[in-house]
Amino acid sequence: MTAQPAQHARTQVGIVGAGPAGLMLSHLLSAAGIGSVVIETRTREDIEATIRAGILEQGTVDLMVSTGVGDRLLDKGSRHDGIEIRFGGGSHRVDFRSSVGRSVYLYPQHEVLRDLIAARLADDGDIRFGASEVSLHGVTGTEPVIHFTDADGRPTDLRCDLIAGCDGAQGTTKWSIPDGRRTDHFRAYRHGWFGILAEAPPSSKELIYAHSDRGFALISSRTPTVQRMYFQCDPEEDADSWSDNRIWDELQSRVAGRGFSLNEGRIFQRSVIPMRSYICDPMQHGRLFLAGDAAHTVPPTGAKGLNLAISDAVVLAQALERFFGTGHADLLEGYGRTAAQRVWRAQHFSWWMTSMLHLAPDAGDFDRHRQLAELDQITGSAAGRTLLAESYTGWPIELTNPRSVVAEALSLTHGRWP
Amino acid sequence: MTAQPAQHARTQVGIVGAGPAGLMLSHLLSAAGIGSVVIETRTREDIEATIRAGILEQGTVDLMVSTGVGDRLLDKGSRHDGIEIRFGGGSHRVDFRSSVGRSVYLYPQHEVLRDLIAARLADDGDIRFGASEVSLHGVTGTEPVIHFTDADGRPTDLRCDLIAGCDGAQGTTKWSIPDGRRTDHFRAYRHGWFGILAEAPPSSKELIYAHSDRGFALISSRTPTVQRMYFQCDPEEDADSWSDNRIWDELQSRVAGRGFSLNEGRIFQRSVIPMRSYICDPMQHGRLFLAGDAAHTVPPTGAKGLNLAISDAVVLAQALERFFGTGHADLLEGYGRTAAQRVWRAQHFSWWMTSMLHLAPDAGDFDRHRQLAELDQITGSAAGRTLLAESYTGWPIELTNPRSVVAEALSLTHGRWP
Repeated sequence: MTAQPAQHARTQVGIVGAGPAGLMLSHLLSAAGIGSVVIETRTREDIEATIRAGILEQGTVDLMVSTGVGDRLLDKGSRHDGIEIRFGGGSHRVDFRSSVGRSVYLYPQHEVLRDLIAARLADDGDIRFGASEVSLHGVTGTEPVIHFTDADGRPTDLRCDLIAGCDGAQGTTKWSIPDGRRTDHFRAYRHGWFGILAEAPPSSKELIYAHSDRGFALISSRTPTVQRMYFQCDPEEDADSWSDNRIWDELQSRVAGRGFSLNEGRIFQRSVIPMRSYICDPMQHGRLFLAGDAAHTVPPTGAKGLNLAISDAVVLAQALERFFGTGHADLLEGYGRTAAQRVWRAQHFSWWMTSMLHLAPDAGDFDRHRQLAELDQITGSAAGRTLLAESYTGWPIELTNPRSVVAEALSLTHGRWP
Repeated sequence: MTAQPAQHARTQVGIVGAGPAGLMLSHLLSAAGIGSVVIETRTREDIEATIRAGILEQGTVDLMVSTGVGDRLLDKGSRHDGIEIRFGGGSHRVDFRSSVGRSVYLYPQHEVLRDLIAARLADDGDIRFGASEVSLHGVTGTEPVIHFTDADGRPTDLRCDLIAGCDGAQGTTKWSIPDGRRTDHFRAYRHGWFGILAEAPPSSKELIYAHSDRGFALISSRTPTVQRMYFQCDPEEDADSWSDNRIWDELQSRVAGRGFSLNEGRIFQRSVIPMRSYICDPMQHGRLFLAGDAAHTVPPTGAKGLNLAISDAVVLAQALERFFGTGHADLLEGYGRTAAQRVWRAQHFSWWMTSMLHLAPDAGDFDRHRQLAELDQITGSAAGRTLLAESYTGWPIELTNPRSVVAEALSLTHGRWP
């Protein structure tokens, strides 16, 4: 194989990663007339086939609908107006509509990605799937470069005005912030989630969050015939060592009470998911701006990961529109600070849901009784249900640049979906 | 000294301990025409001179007013319609009136005891101060006995229909529940409170709960010239090794921000208070019923100790009125279960206030940021403020026996104080 000649290209915003943050950013920039190129190491087929969970906050749904990528979501997603919390042998509903007048949508993340990819390609968007050897250069200068090898093996230099690092939790763009300039806030939880996909009908119309003497369980639905279920386990648990019967026994025992039982079925996927919190502080350096999982991860208990990626993209798009439209960098300079406020709020909510519903490995009778008293108070008080619903359905998206295309779209469409 | 002949006495309810639970119980029983004798090891002078903190929930105030022991409270106590929470250099008020339409009173515990003692003695109540060698006998029979030596050195046998163990956290009545029948739920917190009394004018009209990078502080007021202040410390801290200057520096640094500073003055009392949670489960055995600190202790962060003693007395008085009036023991049998629900709620609230405002010894940046996000959410959301206010001002007192004298008095007077 002979070395191919290097290609040179230029764009306004170079985006590393075609996940929710990178694709939504490219989509929003396009609406504002700002050029971008998305560099992604995976193939389109791989991205679209990787089944991922998805609970979309009110603001995420608003944004997708208002920017023209919400049709399939409204058609195939399912609106959830509340959740069930099970403890002490009974079910306690937190109704979002009556508490805060908002809802969430159950719509898997890979479907969001399919919608965004289709929209970008229909708009002649530039996504370089199957790239490799991606590296950043000169992020503190005025024309940073993304170097990568494209799917055809050609080395490419993409010169940009700015770079968005949207390459997820395992991404490397954040390492372009030097060690001495970066604080990594990290927390590992002492339990994981044992997750399964099963061929079975739904057991409940809404998600069930269960506290039990054996630990936490979460019952969710993918489709009318496929269910997603999780239960708290040791993070070192070996998923393959569990028989199907043992898995069902464990799940049933955690949601038991008052005649309720799960619908069972063939288990066709299983894995153990670690629970971690991470924040990269700051979320920017020179002309590099991190967004989504590249900058932060949350435990899945609060269903916040995808939504934070979207809200980061909204905050960054507004700042970029101001920068390219007026030359003012003020919103760009404040990007990380603005985004981090919401991230810390989500970190707290995720930690709270986790610590309220999971049993710590060293939890005693005192802790269990205290948790039950907390659950009783939160579900038994309108203020408690409202506090939970406010966080679960998501805080209002930060409109830092009211004249931006995205802010105008959002303000027109806010909450107008069925 | 010659041995004196044993005395014999009889009453319906023998009460061990002239603290808030025991005295309020005796007071409520008297209103219902039920006889009681209170046995107390301390002298009246000692009890009335021991300065203790006191935040009275709405329900506690209602009860004192409605049962004729609220005059001095309304005259000398001060109504607090909210608290200040300080964090991140600013102050954030939680307004109780606008959130839940209720308030609390700042009125020291020893003043409550003075009022109850005066009322009992004015009603010819029988309180045996200065008793010693108190022991219980036959609590599982039908006529249990309290044996004690009275203040004049005479051994006495007090035969009762039932016994109320109200002898506080250090009390021994709970040991009459055999080991195999009793679960002691215990939790020690990893920090204590360094408390001072100082001659100084108030720095704030309301209590200040402060979160800081150096840990928690609480600023409270006793009188227009005496202030009570606390700051989080190691539970093994030696209070006497601190200079006054060092104490003030520490307190000032924890409440610092936006020009605020504490009024200082001569420190005339100092001590380190451990933080513990305890619940005796069950709270009853045979004809012995525990109430107040004898059955449970909470960390002082939620200001719930005194109020739980009062609510225990209310629940127990209603059950006793039913028992003596109708012969039915059902409410007595359910006493511990009813009382424990509120106790666990208070345990959770006290734990929550403690963990939200204190820095754990091993807290890192993640924990501090998460706490700030939580404080921001609780104080910034009407639902969050309401949730805190509901717990702080106290849940409605359980009226298990609507026909009882105490339930009728409470329902007439509920919230009618200025």
